Amino acid sequence: MNDARNRTVRLARRPVGLPGRDTWAIADEPVPVPQEGEVLVEVKAISLDPAMRGWLDEGKSYIPPVGLGEVMRAAGAGVVLQSRDPRWKPGDTVMGGLGVQKLACVRGRDLEPIDIAIAPFERWLGVLGVPGMTAWFGLFEVGALKDGETVVVSAAAGAVGGLVVQLAKSRGCQVVGIAGGPDKCRLVVEQFGADACIDYKSQDVRAGVSAALPGGVDVYFDNVGGEILEAMLTLLRRRARVVICGAVSGYNDFANIRGPRNYLNLLIQRARMEGFVVFDYAARYPEARAEIARGLADGAIRALEDVRDGIDTFPDVLPLLYSGGNFGKLVLRP
Amino acid sequence: MNDARNRTVRLARRPVGLPGRDTWAIADEPVPVPQEGEVLVEVKAISLDPAMRGWLDEGKSYIPPVGLGEVMRAAGAGVVLQSRDPRWKPGDTVMGGLGVQKLACVRGRDLEPIDIAIAPFERWLGVLGVPGMTAWFGLFEVGALKDGETVVVSAAAGAVGGLVVQLAKSRGCQVVGIAGGPDKCRLVVEQFGADACIDYKSQDVRAGVSAALPGGVDVYFDNVGGEILEAMLTLLRRRARVVICGAVSGYNDFANIRGPRNYLNLLIQRARMEGFVVFDYAARYPEARAEIARGLADGAIRALEDVRDGIDTFPDVLPLLYSGGNFGKLVLRP
Repeated sequence: MNDARNRTVRLARRPVGLPGRDTWAIADEPVPVPQEGEVLVEVKAISLDPAMRGWLDEGKSYIPPVGLGEVMRAAGAGVVLQSRDPRWKPGDTVMGGLGVQKLACVRGRDLEPIDIAIAPFERWLGVLGVPGMTAWFGLFEVGALKDGETVVVSAAAGAVGGLVVQLAKSRGCQVVGIAGGPDKCRLVVEQFGADACIDYKSQDVRAGVSAALPGGVDVYFDNVGGEILEAMLTLLRRRARVVICGAVSGYNDFANIRGPRNYLNLLIQRARMEGFVVFDYAARYPEARAEIARGLADGAIRALEDVRDGIDTFPDVLPLLYSGGNFGKLVLRP
Repeated sequence: MNDARNRTVRLARRPVGLPGRDTWAIADEPVPVPQEGEVLVEVKAISLDPAMRGWLDEGKSYIPPVGLGEVMRAAGAGVVLQSRDPRWKPGDTVMGGLGVQKLACVRGRDLEPIDIAIAPFERWLGVLGVPGMTAWFGLFEVGALKDGETVVVSAAAGAVGGLVVQLAKSRGCQVVGIAGGPDKCRLVVEQFGADACIDYKSQDVRAGVSAALPGGVDVYFDNVGGEILEAMLTLLRRRARVVICGAVSGYNDFANIRGPRNYLNLLIQRARMEGFVVFDYAARYPEARAEIARGLADGAIRALEDVRDGIDTFPDVLPLLYSGGNFGKLVLRP
């Protein structure tokens, strides 16, 4: 045991707007004792995801909200310390829903093995984890991408967007990213290989994408919603697909979220807009993970993580996702 | 020749909002003389369609706008008077883009034959014409309807909606219509066979549909947009399909059209929203028309037309489509 005590981040109150320090209760707690079928895991990396904001609101969504007083839900990767499940033994490396805490006591059957010889802990939460699966199934299944089409992705410097750019390039597509600020745009072009990247903070997104893809857009992978979604709806080609992956622009003010007023462009262009939840594809993760791991091994795919340290920084680090303050997959090392 | 003069309705000025009397110029004109390949047709029935409003605005849409000074575009059915196209001879019954006028001079190759032993002129503009094709391809192709699913359709007393109800019932579906006023709702249930019809003028649409279909909606066929579209997005089942056929609620104020603020329900329910333009399916019309004609013949499908008389009434009759003043397919007999 590395720690005599666990340290946890629990939901103290439901936020209005952006979560703040008072949203959370951070405390030392006794180390949990695994029961039959359970495993105690030392958490090495915690995944911070835009979807977390949605989990804090009451009401119907694709998964239940985090309850008041509960440890904040999070994907994580770590090392087994104790096991009362025959599947696992101390020293095994695993990932799963470990929560925002230093030590997690979870059911063994809810964990997956990870091989840290292939990639470090944090990468299993990024391109090999849920963001990677989201990019792969969103682009290829929901977006039904065909070789050589034109693709636009927003939040292109993020965990999902950065991989969407690279996967689309690997299929011979013309790819334009949208990101905030010159540093992120440079990253998207120079590291991820996009043909162009439009800086929504300083450029007219519609004009920029239109100049880069004068023939229009076959697949728009939307991570942000709002005005950028509206702008892209005006640039669709016939039979285009809009993949609704998220809407960062609205997560902190869901009641006032903006609908795309020009959704009738879907009619004009015979286009579709489709949402998805990546967990539906869980049975097929190995297929996607194998392709991404091959790309990592041969250098065709670059992973970028933004790793922060210290579990107590969680309340300050999480909002970076909504202000665009992170560079690549945001991971907390507790 | 029945008339020594033609009478035409031309676009005089582009309307702001609802088209009014001053949108149009109605006049007597010389009878056009068919040139090589052309045919002179006596127009017996003119189709009035919600999409007409969109054709009056400048700008990009699925077809070019009607030009200022041009005869108003309209589908029509009639009888050949003179022909300089070997395909047609006087007395043939035809349909095509005849415009809002008494005598139309058009290219013979743009006409289709109709058999008025099967159905009268006006019906070829309704369930056997573009509205019928719109219902059939929207429901079965875009909506990918499966037997026994749950279906909701707005403007259910209209030309498209009424047939959507009947086609879905013919596939063993549970069908709920949405229409304006008790008379229309009675029509939708008693004549078209819907399991229920919600009166949006006096009932809470969301509550009404939810009560009729407590398990949710597999296919929502949207003819109206606006608040009703938003309400239906909250009732979607997993993998639901929203067919975007039109948006009557927004046609007369396109700049202020309302986007569905809750489009993220598409994500929660892994659902899609897809637009279409029926003309894309023109090569397959015979397939749809054959099924509908069989239904008419054996009584399984009922057609309802609202036939008005006199070409000079066009400016007053057209707005009925946007105020809900028509009962069934609106046709003008010039």
